[in-house]
Amino acid sequence: MAKDITLHWASGSPPCWRVIIALEEKNLKGYNQKLLSFDKGEQKEKETLDINPRGQVPAFKHGNNIVNESIAACLYLESQFKSRGPSLIPDSSEEQALMYQRMIEILNLQQRLADVVLYTRRIPEEERHDSAVKRNREALSAEFKLWESYMHKGGPYMAGKNFTLADVIVFPPIAFSLRLGLSQERYPKLTEYYNLAKERPSIKATWPKHWLENPQGMDLFKDL
Amino acid sequence: MAKDITLHWASGSPPCWRVIIALEEKNLKGYNQKLLSFDKGEQKEKETLDINPRGQVPAFKHGNNIVNESIAACLYLESQFKSRGPSLIPDSSEEQALMYQRMIEILNLQQRLADVVLYTRRIPEEERHDSAVKRNREALSAEFKLWESYMHKGGPYMAGKNFTLADVIVFPPIAFSLRLGLSQERYPKLTEYYNLAKERPSIKATWPKHWLENPQGMDLFKDL
Repeated sequence: MAKDITLHWASGSPPCWRVIIALEEKNLKGYNQKLLSFDKGEQKEKETLDINPRGQVPAFKHGNNIVNESIAACLYLESQFKSRGPSLIPDSSEEQALMYQRMIEILNLQQRLADVVLYTRRIPEEERHDSAVKRNREALSAEFKLWESYMHKGGPYMAGKNFTLADVIVFPPIAFSLRLGLSQERYPKLTEYYNLAKERPSIKATWPKHWLENPQGMDLFKDL
Repeated sequence: MAKDITLHWASGSPPCWRVIIALEEKNLKGYNQKLLSFDKGEQKEKETLDINPRGQVPAFKHGNNIVNESIAACLYLESQFKSRGPSLIPDSSEEQALMYQRMIEILNLQQRLADVVLYTRRIPEEERHDSAVKRNREALSAEFKLWESYMHKGGPYMAGKNFTLADVIVFPPIAFSLRLGLSQERYPKLTEYYNLAKERPSIKATWPKHWLENPQGMDLFKDL
């Protein structure tokens, strides 16, 4: 079954990690995979472009079906392999509402992470402004505060009592943020959520290898 | 049933229109609604903030369940009212893959639309650069070309033979783009899709009123 699946991915990329966690939850092992290096720009090579015309990872294929957007791939995997592994969509309308809301809402945080982390990569030197850097960091800080305020309303998981697609999708950017120095003291509820969810077997088994080897990331977010 | 639903919205906002189309497809009429004016900043008033802490629309509530992200609200409505109206999730894995992919992938187009349309609103005057405006327009143009290339591979709808959630979610930004002057000559397949989907009863019935009164938008995109 997993032999029909191909995944091109990069280690530590939150979108890639989502798909890897979903595959693990659905007990799909032994799929074809290709680990790419962003530094070498390997996601722009033909073999990946043939799956994902944007030249981005994840690039995901199941049989002839291509689903490259990570949130879409998680929804697709849950739908196609509903009866394998635990159900990742809760039964109650209350948890479902929160699951769908958080799994899409996380894109706001993701956008603001990119605005800060990728600023010098995306904005040419002659267009850079300290005021823009400051504004982007403030927007990211406001976003972290919002997510901190969301935690543990009916938790402990992202959408309530159960581990759902919301956790598959939201956990990787939260883990990425803590790795980049987000203060555990200033964000105790996000940290508590992180400490709980990182013990989930699917997450533990798929932890980015270079994060294990070098657990300390940059201190980029420590004053946010 | 619809009496439990509240929607705060703005006319012509693609994210709001998605939720309105989904409600129409699911034959949910007579819900509580509040039409807001962006010009007056009404989305920042307490009644809306109580539903959507981001001060954005749509602000959507069903009973006590809040789902403000438009894609999330469409997924939620289809899940909660599966047996009302047509099924908006196709049975075949092929169409499902394409549906999930396109419904999330459209966020790339949406982001690039915002980069162009909201540039002067979002970037303070002293930080603006002609080179950034040019780059944003080129990125939007590349995005339109990509979507043009996607059309009619197994169409005529966004994910294949059937009208699905992908159409509910992708159609509004496409219609918005054509209203802002996207060339029907240069994008014949997107235009053909637009002409087909705009006849869908749920879309016809919910066409933004001020677009009917003033069908000509700006010429902002005509050279893209």
